[in-house]
Amino acid sequence: MIKTPYLLFLGDAPDQLAAKVAQGIKDWRPENAVGQFRMDGCGADVALTDMSLTEAKAAGAKTLVIGVANRGGVISAAWKAVLLEAIDMGYDLASGLHNLLRDEADLVAAAKANGTQLHDVRVPSVQYPIATGVKRKGKRCLAVGTDCSVGKMYTGMAMDAEMRTRGMKSTFRPTGQTGILITGEGVPLDAVVADFMAGAVEYLTPDNDDDHWDHIEGQGSLFHVSYSGVTMALIHGGQPDALVLAHEPTRKHMRGLPDYQQPSLQELREAAFLMARVANPNCQVIGISVNTQHLADDEFENYLAKVEAEMCLPTIDPFRQGAGRLVDALDAL
Amino acid sequence: MIKTPYLLFLGDAPDQLAAKVAQGIKDWRPENAVGQFRMDGCGADVALTDMSLTEAKAAGAKTLVIGVANRGGVISAAWKAVLLEAIDMGYDLASGLHNLLRDEADLVAAAKANGTQLHDVRVPSVQYPIATGVKRKGKRCLAVGTDCSVGKMYTGMAMDAEMRTRGMKSTFRPTGQTGILITGEGVPLDAVVADFMAGAVEYLTPDNDDDHWDHIEGQGSLFHVSYSGVTMALIHGGQPDALVLAHEPTRKHMRGLPDYQQPSLQELREAAFLMARVANPNCQVIGISVNTQHLADDEFENYLAKVEAEMCLPTIDPFRQGAGRLVDALDAL
Repeated sequence: MIKTPYLLFLGDAPDQLAAKVAQGIKDWRPENAVGQFRMDGCGADVALTDMSLTEAKAAGAKTLVIGVANRGGVISAAWKAVLLEAIDMGYDLASGLHNLLRDEADLVAAAKANGTQLHDVRVPSVQYPIATGVKRKGKRCLAVGTDCSVGKMYTGMAMDAEMRTRGMKSTFRPTGQTGILITGEGVPLDAVVADFMAGAVEYLTPDNDDDHWDHIEGQGSLFHVSYSGVTMALIHGGQPDALVLAHEPTRKHMRGLPDYQQPSLQELREAAFLMARVANPNCQVIGISVNTQHLADDEFENYLAKVEAEMCLPTIDPFRQGAGRLVDALDAL
Repeated sequence: MIKTPYLLFLGDAPDQLAAKVAQGIKDWRPENAVGQFRMDGCGADVALTDMSLTEAKAAGAKTLVIGVANRGGVISAAWKAVLLEAIDMGYDLASGLHNLLRDEADLVAAAKANGTQLHDVRVPSVQYPIATGVKRKGKRCLAVGTDCSVGKMYTGMAMDAEMRTRGMKSTFRPTGQTGILITGEGVPLDAVVADFMAGAVEYLTPDNDDDHWDHIEGQGSLFHVSYSGVTMALIHGGQPDALVLAHEPTRKHMRGLPDYQQPSLQELREAAFLMARVANPNCQVIGISVNTQHLADDEFENYLAKVEAEMCLPTIDPFRQGAGRLVDALDAL
């Protein structure tokens, strides 16, 4: 578990898009961040107070989180100087970069000397068990997509936020590095060894109160041949009580696979429901979350209405409309 | 790739079952083994010539293969003495034990000093790519099971052997440690990192002649919640042209999962066909392989006939009847 609150390191991010992780923390867990740290030439701004390491430390910051993705995922010399200074001041570091903190000898030595921690959230820090399939208490919801990167994490985050606002018991359970940095814990599922994938999802979503919902972050797609095994492990390790179908309607082909067409929402419902019932015979498909960012203001509502009529399921864009109707559907189960 | 021929190390195996790997090599690739090495008290015998290290070396053996599973998978002191002597004589070693050869400092030092290799087939030795999904030349056949350990490897081995006997182009493609030790190469799929599973299967089964068949060793089951992600990666990474359904009819529940019932063969066909068509729209289910070892001589044929009538697919036990009818079905595609 990564100690909060954070200072968000934006470094010399070339643009706002490069600060996706920091923006996610600001959007979903603003209470986890005391401020942002920007270097000369930084092109990103997540609208937190600019702070030096000293100012943030005084404000209570425990961990410097690398909230920026740079070209090649490499830790530059300019970054290194800041990171070393932070460690010397007692900060833990957390990063989702390909270039692991633990592979940098000077960072490791400094962390050891100062008794601080280096969190590389891209790789597992736990030896996960093999899944037992034993039925767990509490409820779990999983978003499954027609493709990768169609809004599954956003959907889970938005449903979790809505439930908290309503005073319902809810936890978002990250399975990817961005989600892990946002909430401070989770499982980097794509880096787990095959035999332990489903067990890692069980580990992530243990027994809970009967009226508590875990929102498990989805990954990949049953229809994406590169990553479908990860999706399957989420469906069987997660034992979801509820599935949300996630879709992006303007894709020309599966992400990164020009020869593969997206499945229809009907095909996704059929396949995901068939597989989910193996682990939980009571699982229900409760709604559809559509990423309509590429549809105009005057067309997205028509599109959602059309899908809702065809599929007979609540169909919303959680970014434009909030996740209220999906939470209503969960509540009605 | 492990150098052949082998000397098979049976050590002090308590019984015949413990020598499963050695027996598999003897059954499927007898040309790969010059003899067996047994220590005092060995309770296993795979009916090869007993040889000392010196005798086997003179007979051309290149690799000492640990063909035995012991309790805990640990390399004992008695074994260690033999393994060190073998390395000093120029043998490579190959093992599928949990206790990795590479984790034993004295073996590593001896291998380095003698310029010999240590093969731990339980862990990957290659950085596999992410799957591209690009359509490959040649044909591929995959056995999918109602459960784990129902005879998928045996089915693939038997089909491969039958095709070779007929002069057809065929390769068995191992995805588990036993198969890798038998053939000398393959992918230990259950130890591959999640993101690279399907890519590892693509790597294992590259472009080939149009009339060549790869028989990909199946793993797990779409209906076994602990390992279904691995099965899914085989189906999507393998792009099979043909599926064989594998079944063991006397199981009371899914292996290791007392609360889970086996699916019917109809349910398996539906799920596997649905998923396989994502990667290969021309995939066909061509037959059924039943492990009837727990059915009596006077009942197994009735059982197979009943399944064949229900499923309208050639249904055989490859151990009792050979894989001829499955190969006929492949040939007819």
